[in-house]
Amino acid sequence: MKPSFTAFDYQMMARAIELAKKGLYTTAPNPNVGCVIVRDAKVVGEGFHYRAGEPHAEVFALREAQEKAQGATAYVTLEPCSHFGRTPPCAEALVKAKVGKVICAMQDPNPQVAGRGIKILQEAGIEVQVGLLESDSEALNPGFIKQMKTGMPFVQLKLAASLDGKTALKNGVSQWITSPEARKDVQSFRAKAGAVLSTSKTVIDDNASLNVRWNDLPSSIQNQYPKINLRQPKRAILDKNLVLTNNLKLFQSDGEIITISDSAIEASSTQSHISVSLDKEGQLCLDEVLEQLNKQQQINHIWVEAGATLAASFLKQNLVDELIIYLAPKLMGTDGRGLVNLLGLESMDQVIDLEIKDIRMVGSDIRVVATVKQES
Amino acid sequence: MKPSFTAFDYQMMARAIELAKKGLYTTAPNPNVGCVIVRDAKVVGEGFHYRAGEPHAEVFALREAQEKAQGATAYVTLEPCSHFGRTPPCAEALVKAKVGKVICAMQDPNPQVAGRGIKILQEAGIEVQVGLLESDSEALNPGFIKQMKTGMPFVQLKLAASLDGKTALKNGVSQWITSPEARKDVQSFRAKAGAVLSTSKTVIDDNASLNVRWNDLPSSIQNQYPKINLRQPKRAILDKNLVLTNNLKLFQSDGEIITISDSAIEASSTQSHISVSLDKEGQLCLDEVLEQLNKQQQINHIWVEAGATLAASFLKQNLVDELIIYLAPKLMGTDGRGLVNLLGLESMDQVIDLEIKDIRMVGSDIRVVATVKQES
Repeated sequence: MKPSFTAFDYQMMARAIELAKKGLYTTAPNPNVGCVIVRDAKVVGEGFHYRAGEPHAEVFALREAQEKAQGATAYVTLEPCSHFGRTPPCAEALVKAKVGKVICAMQDPNPQVAGRGIKILQEAGIEVQVGLLESDSEALNPGFIKQMKTGMPFVQLKLAASLDGKTALKNGVSQWITSPEARKDVQSFRAKAGAVLSTSKTVIDDNASLNVRWNDLPSSIQNQYPKINLRQPKRAILDKNLVLTNNLKLFQSDGEIITISDSAIEASSTQSHISVSLDKEGQLCLDEVLEQLNKQQQINHIWVEAGATLAASFLKQNLVDELIIYLAPKLMGTDGRGLVNLLGLESMDQVIDLEIKDIRMVGSDIRVVATVKQES
Repeated sequence: MKPSFTAFDYQMMARAIELAKKGLYTTAPNPNVGCVIVRDAKVVGEGFHYRAGEPHAEVFALREAQEKAQGATAYVTLEPCSHFGRTPPCAEALVKAKVGKVICAMQDPNPQVAGRGIKILQEAGIEVQVGLLESDSEALNPGFIKQMKTGMPFVQLKLAASLDGKTALKNGVSQWITSPEARKDVQSFRAKAGAVLSTSKTVIDDNASLNVRWNDLPSSIQNQYPKINLRQPKRAILDKNLVLTNNLKLFQSDGEIITISDSAIEASSTQSHISVSLDKEGQLCLDEVLEQLNKQQQINHIWVEAGATLAASFLKQNLVDELIIYLAPKLMGTDGRGLVNLLGLESMDQVIDLEIKDIRMVGSDIRVVATVKQES
């Protein structure tokens, strides 16, 4: 039977989710978690996870609540952890503080440990309820959840084009198609990701730094995310033949760099490096890339920002969890460059079908969030 | 000085606009007009224009109000007419009914007669105020207003493509890109227009009837627009060399047909016909087409539904007032057929800049309403 929650419960969990969001730009690869402790219908403690290695949400909330935690109800957006990581298990901290009841939005997504935290609490005589605002809590941590469930990172693919689907004129001219607001929006997506993934071609052609420029974040984000706390996503660059050179802007800008090359090529780079095999088309094997970024670099959320060729490869191999498409209010002509290098489709059932999740204006552009529709 | 209106005034004019909308599918080429008559803060009469040749909004409202019109306030979405057309002038009817005050949303857009109706009322001692919910009233009659101001019809261009701007695969396969809901939405735009404009190529390639199929209208429209009242827009077909033949579906479906051809070619058709000159590219001169459709056929609102070539011609000649673009959640590939046949653009200032007025989901598709940004 599903537990029944009161309006007050909803209100408190919504508050815990708001708190969790304060870590949106900093917790990677850890999940965003918020916690509210309530006694006698009054909030006595609040906390959220801010950065890997620092205390978890429950610990901050318990610290604030002190002895008032006794007999109180703790609202947590994720099942309290049951293991010793860099910090001791939160489930035990809650037991020690003698809370009376714990309400979690969702179970731990790791099938290996799911339910263990809940069991520790229950065995200590604490009442536990699960499932309050579950999908809102899931939306906080797409990368963490996907990694736990599948061992693969969550992949967002960024695309930008005119309304007639062009990324540049025939002669390559493309600056600027999208509005300054859309470019700021892109910065905020980069800021949330564990890594920005691109290709050596994009890095060289655009002399792109692919990091987060705090000054270019939307002011709404700057207000909650002071410059001093800026966390740079890693920059994972597909560089099959290791052609990148240190004079590029990429190497002169903040943020760790991971180069990814053909395992047949000897790498002698100073930065982090991943070798993968080639697929049957002679390209870096993308699912191996994703898997190794997760395994070797703990990256569970990737923001792909590259050209039409890589976009097509990701889509054809069904590796994209979410597309973020900016459409600028322009018509650029039939001979312009296309959004996604798909060629040779011959019937409508070969077309890539998407499902639109959100549309909104960002500056003068339309932003579309979509997922790939899976064959049923 | 701008007159000041009360909250009650706004409420009554909003009601008059709602009434006017009841004629949205039937009044063409006449404007949509609504009228509410109020005495002692109570509505005593309501009316709207339904069909050309039938009484105007004010007449219906006065009929309902009878002797209660005396001393009452009339809210009208458009300045009462001052001329004898197929019906006698409404300004005089209001004078005769001895209303005390008239509030109009807007002046008559025809510069030749603007203000005359108001003058008749004022000379009879009736207080007149103008400008309440003016832009909402203007939005009721884009075709009527544009014709009155410029002698040219209002032109809406329909486009439909995948999210990467393709109307068909390379081999021409295209059914169905957009959703059934989007196709119903198209029917509702056709239903509002004075004419659907297309080309003989589209008529032949698609064996298109280009009329309104009542059964395919959205149910929200069917509910307010009974089948028995269906008004078919005229179908204006660019047929430069008069290649259309009577066996086509176009000729076997309801709705008047106007063929438009090169004036150098002898026309012997039974349906309405317009001859125009050719432009310097050897194509039918489009501004002449629009002007003659207005002059000879009283069409003030045109819905253009054709291929990428005609779309490009309309856009390049700056003849489009509004674009209605359906974007289906699909990616169809770089070698698919383009949305608008523009070629050879070489710098971003040659690109067609649009301004987005509205975005919304229609079924599973995105519908974008945009205008062409004029050079400042």
